[in-house]
Amino acid sequence: MIESILLTPVIAGAVGLVFALILYFRVKSLPTGNETMNRIAGYIREGAMAFLFREYKVLTVYAVVVALALGLALGWIAAGCFLLGAFLSLLAGFFGMKAATYANVRTTQAASTGSKGKALLVALDGGAVMGLAVAGLGLIGLGSLYYLFYTQEGVIGTVLHSFAVGASSIALFARIGGGIYTKAADVGADIAGKVIEGIPEDDPRNPGVIADNVGDNVGDVAGMGADIYESMVAAIVAAMAIALTIKPEALVGLVSEGAGLNPKGVAVLLPLGLSALGMIISLLVILATRFFSSASPAMVLRAALIVPPLILTAASALIMPMLGIHQGVTTALAAGAIGGALIGLITDYYTSSRPIRLVADSSLTGAGTNVIRGLAVGMESTALPILVVVVAAYIADQALGLYGIALSAVGMLAGTAVVMTVDAYGPIADNAGGISEMSGLGPSVRDITDELDAVGNTTAAIGKGFAIGSAVLTVVALFSAFNMEVNHVRLLNNLAPMSLDLTSSNVLIGLLIGSILPFLVGSTTMTAVGRAAQSIVVEIGRQFREIPGLLQGKAEPEPARIVDIATRAALIEMIVPGLIAVLAPVAIGFLLGPVALAGTLAGALAVGATMALFMANAGGSWDNAKKYIEKGHLKGHKKGSDAHKAAVVGDTVGDPFKDTSGPGVAILIKVMSVVSLLIAQLIATIG
Amino acid sequence: MIESILLTPVIAGAVGLVFALILYFRVKSLPTGNETMNRIAGYIREGAMAFLFREYKVLTVYAVVVALALGLALGWIAAGCFLLGAFLSLLAGFFGMKAATYANVRTTQAASTGSKGKALLVALDGGAVMGLAVAGLGLIGLGSLYYLFYTQEGVIGTVLHSFAVGASSIALFARIGGGIYTKAADVGADIAGKVIEGIPEDDPRNPGVIADNVGDNVGDVAGMGADIYESMVAAIVAAMAIALTIKPEALVGLVSEGAGLNPKGVAVLLPLGLSALGMIISLLVILATRFFSSASPAMVLRAALIVPPLILTAASALIMPMLGIHQGVTTALAAGAIGGALIGLITDYYTSSRPIRLVADSSLTGAGTNVIRGLAVGMESTALPILVVVVAAYIADQALGLYGIALSAVGMLAGTAVVMTVDAYGPIADNAGGISEMSGLGPSVRDITDELDAVGNTTAAIGKGFAIGSAVLTVVALFSAFNMEVNHVRLLNNLAPMSLDLTSSNVLIGLLIGSILPFLVGSTTMTAVGRAAQSIVVEIGRQFREIPGLLQGKAEPEPARIVDIATRAALIEMIVPGLIAVLAPVAIGFLLGPVALAGTLAGALAVGATMALFMANAGGSWDNAKKYIEKGHLKGHKKGSDAHKAAVVGDTVGDPFKDTSGPGVAILIKVMSVVSLLIAQLIATIG
Repeated sequence: MIESILLTPVIAGAVGLVFALILYFRVKSLPTGNETMNRIAGYIREGAMAFLFREYKVLTVYAVVVALALGLALGWIAAGCFLLGAFLSLLAGFFGMKAATYANVRTTQAASTGSKGKALLVALDGGAVMGLAVAGLGLIGLGSLYYLFYTQEGVIGTVLHSFAVGASSIALFARIGGGIYTKAADVGADIAGKVIEGIPEDDPRNPGVIADNVGDNVGDVAGMGADIYESMVAAIVAAMAIALTIKPEALVGLVSEGAGLNPKGVAVLLPLGLSALGMIISLLVILATRFFSSASPAMVLRAALIVPPLILTAASALIMPMLGIHQGVTTALAAGAIGGALIGLITDYYTSSRPIRLVADSSLTGAGTNVIRGLAVGMESTALPILVVVVAAYIADQALGLYGIALSAVGMLAGTAVVMTVDAYGPIADNAGGISEMSGLGPSVRDITDELDAVGNTTAAIGKGFAIGSAVLTVVALFSAFNMEVNHVRLLNNLAPMSLDLTSSNVLIGLLIGSILPFLVGSTTMTAVGRAAQSIVVEIGRQFREIPGLLQGKAEPEPARIVDIATRAALIEMIVPGLIAVLAPVAIGFLLGPVALAGTLAGALAVGATMALFMANAGGSWDNAKKYIEKGHLKGHKKGSDAHKAAVVGDTVGDPFKDTSGPGVAILIKVMSVVSLLIAQLIATIG
Repeated sequence: MIESILLTPVIAGAVGLVFALILYFRVKSLPTGNETMNRIAGYIREGAMAFLFREYKVLTVYAVVVALALGLALGWIAAGCFLLGAFLSLLAGFFGMKAATYANVRTTQAASTGSKGKALLVALDGGAVMGLAVAGLGLIGLGSLYYLFYTQEGVIGTVLHSFAVGASSIALFARIGGGIYTKAADVGADIAGKVIEGIPEDDPRNPGVIADNVGDNVGDVAGMGADIYESMVAAIVAAMAIALTIKPEALVGLVSEGAGLNPKGVAVLLPLGLSALGMIISLLVILATRFFSSASPAMVLRAALIVPPLILTAASALIMPMLGIHQGVTTALAAGAIGGALIGLITDYYTSSRPIRLVADSSLTGAGTNVIRGLAVGMESTALPILVVVVAAYIADQALGLYGIALSAVGMLAGTAVVMTVDAYGPIADNAGGISEMSGLGPSVRDITDELDAVGNTTAAIGKGFAIGSAVLTVVALFSAFNMEVNHVRLLNNLAPMSLDLTSSNVLIGLLIGSILPFLVGSTTMTAVGRAAQSIVVEIGRQFREIPGLLQGKAEPEPARIVDIATRAALIEMIVPGLIAVLAPVAIGFLLGPVALAGTLAGALAVGATMALFMANAGGSWDNAKKYIEKGHLKGHKKGSDAHKAAVVGDTVGDPFKDTSGPGVAILIKVMSVVSLLIAQLIATIG
């Protein structure tokens, strides 16, 4: 009986994975269009895969080094679990990106037959491969590890934490490396378009265009996938870790009296079980989109994001009493799930609607006022999402205490499969538009891909807001898990629990040190993009000077060189911010002890949560203000007008803000918390 | 005996005030130059004074309302002390700004005689009036209140807190209102210069130039003065409050055994005594500058900032043993004083040197990369100053515990008189340059004023870094004072002390709420500047269209209308951010209780400290990168080149960043802490 229950998450994960495979082969079997389209799509696919393989080489070195260190410090089981967590992340990234780079050209081809609905479905199917792989592999990994080790009480904590650190490490580098790549290519191609007369940023003669399209895949598909995978894993692990170390009294209200359930056992299993439920609901919602392919794409995608939390809440409300579990679980779960959807809607508001018009208006008086207004919008946009997290945490805390907060994070991430599907849809639609433009398929095809792309931009902003919101809630849960783990070990060593009083100078010192870390990651990633973009501009200029006939469209550019520059830059520049995230908690933990480390996590959380939202939403508002002007909504100012040029400056600043530094800061606070949780037992007795 | 000791701070303050008066009349008696110069200086003085009076009217309404509320809640003594704290701030602002607006034209006149040394001294004397008035009035106010109330144990705490809230309130509005005014005028005049063909930003035909010069006075003299006055008062009050509520055991190491001193009495008096010592040392250093007027102005001003902390440390090391006080006091004092100077030097590095060259280089590829690089520099610049504060706090904590941290804040601010002198020198030199330009005094005069102005820009950046660093340390001290006060009252009510454990959900919720407040103040102030600047651009455009002959230089502009627009905008727009700062702690304290409020203060501290440094230094780096290009250091690119135009965009963004939002955020965290301290006894028993 218990065995079969324990296998449920693994089975749910396997179901997801099977559907991912079916969709993968289905997408691959679709018609791919003419030879030009295939050549361009081939460049993009090769560039993306080349980046992935070179990145994976670097990550392998990192993973081996860390695995050795972990093996020596915490045993070889820890090292193995770490490697498994990392490997599954890489596998999801590989699989999902391959699907995305097949789906892009097939979406263009579907659009060229004149069917918007068909094109939408191809792009969604391509995205769903990533979505289902991410959620499925996460469940399979955590589910099978728990199945294998649940009887070994002294080991299970380390097993879970190590797996999470593996997932986090890959997410960190994939997100930062991918973010640097995509924005260096984007900004580089954009600037080259201005510096070299007469070459628009998405012109096929521009050698940077392929790299820009590659960037969409490595940043927004592979990077985002690793990020969301990590969040889901971390939320589940935090909840399980709290359940494993919390005092039994704290869980008394969890199960109904007389149901004969062991509260602790239920508490440990619930995060996995609820995530499995979320996975199945997400799968059904993804499949259901097929029946609405004739509806407006904007409606379909928004509904796909909003419906799963509601179904999950209803399902939990129905199932929990049947299992003899208190409805407090449903309350905590719903607080997170519905909170996540609300954060998505708030992000949607700040990157469209009135804020965009204000930013666009401010372009009339130049780039300076455009940048000022975008920064102001980004700053303002931090308030409501954080308040939603606060309210969700408060409700969950009232329902089930700290364990409830962790469950609300699980609830927010239970829809991972569908969120990731919609996220990966964006770059596929974007690529489809680029391929149609570069292949000269004409305005009617471009109209369809443009509409799909525009929807993708909105959902990308929503996805980003959601990712940051869930990161904040997850970090709060991980933070609690860290403190419990430390105190658990201290108790075993006959030491008093840590005093984390805010007035203790150790906590305050940690708080201030923690507050500078997000700024350091922000600074290094912004600088990296700026520097790499400048090298790309130089190379594009060289090609136009040295390749005869390129400017006249009579010769081919050499996109592979730009791809190579972006790849090298991304792999080198991701190292410093990556090491800050991994080593800061280790250094502070071992040098200053767990109390200062807890303070550091709190300081990094306060600054990182708000900075990530600020950067993501400021970037989104500049991007969409530019598009708003391009569509002619600003008193007839169009592409090329002074107001548009001003808006392009804001968009350039926003590129690394929203796609490199913002996500980098969000992942920083997750990685720091996961690493702290892992080393908790080693530093628990310091100080 | 005790009476005479108690009067020392008042006497030191009075000495400072007498010298302020002497310098005031001395400056006023100097020659004022020709009629054109006097007309222009008259415009500036009238505009500045008109702003001050209209601002004071608004502040009077605010002060009366708050005084009534305080009177009803905490008694009429509290209301009176609040009004005194506010009134002395207004008095210092009035007095200092009047001196600055006399000194500007007299500096120009001295420069026109060809003597750089004489011009330097006039500007420094003008600044010293503000410097000595600020420090002198602070000491007189706090010193006499302590003298009057020190025997009334139940009242003295409220007396000090109320005085600090009075000082804070004025600082808040003067800083934010002045910041909005100065940058709206600056950005407005700057943009108008680009929008209207052929009118440079500092051309006498541009009607915005007078408002820009007025802005230097209301922002950088009156606003900065109120800010520094507040910091000094808050640091002293925090240390005295801690001394009044701390357990006697914590102070055992303060005095030598056998000296027969009461540790608590000594602890309460030391902050005032050390500030008095700092005041006298500052006065001597200011007077000593007269003997170095032939040295390079850059050397003189840097020395004036670095020497006082060293003398203060030496003096304390000499005096403390003579009084039977332990050298721990000197250690804590020195940690703060020398830390402050270090932060100044770090700021100097980030707003000059290599970072500036990187920002200037990035202008070659456009405004986008310039803004990106400036943001990256600003982000990086947060790390070292915060680490200096951390180290200073750590050293002080090791020496004397929390009381030591408070003393280190006092030490950092003991040189207030000289810091403020150098700060107020900046806008005087800036104005002197503007007057010489507008009066057509020729390049040789302009060369002298340009050099004085350039030094002023550097010292302004140093002063800003110092102000933020001291704010952070002061807030840490105020935070401790708040917690002690709450627990003191809880003890009197037989309640257990607050549990401020970081893992309690109340603390975490507060932390997250606190983290969004600096962003809200940043957003509202950035928006305010953008909006007001746009109105100014419209009005300047109208004048050029409707005043015949203005463009040809044959007619006079109407600067008073621009001054009026900036004044109205500043007074209206300062209300929302001001109320956020004052009401947020009140609302959170009464609704969620002191634990959540402590969390809020911690979150606001972490975010506010780093955001303020980020914004101030990013702004400084853009400003100086632009000047670097103007001087022809960037591969021969000059004013008007594409690289320069790109740098102007960064400078425009940096204007509100460094002079409105950055200082606004820094003062936010001080005001929140002071208000929390004041209401501590009212909310202590909630929750």
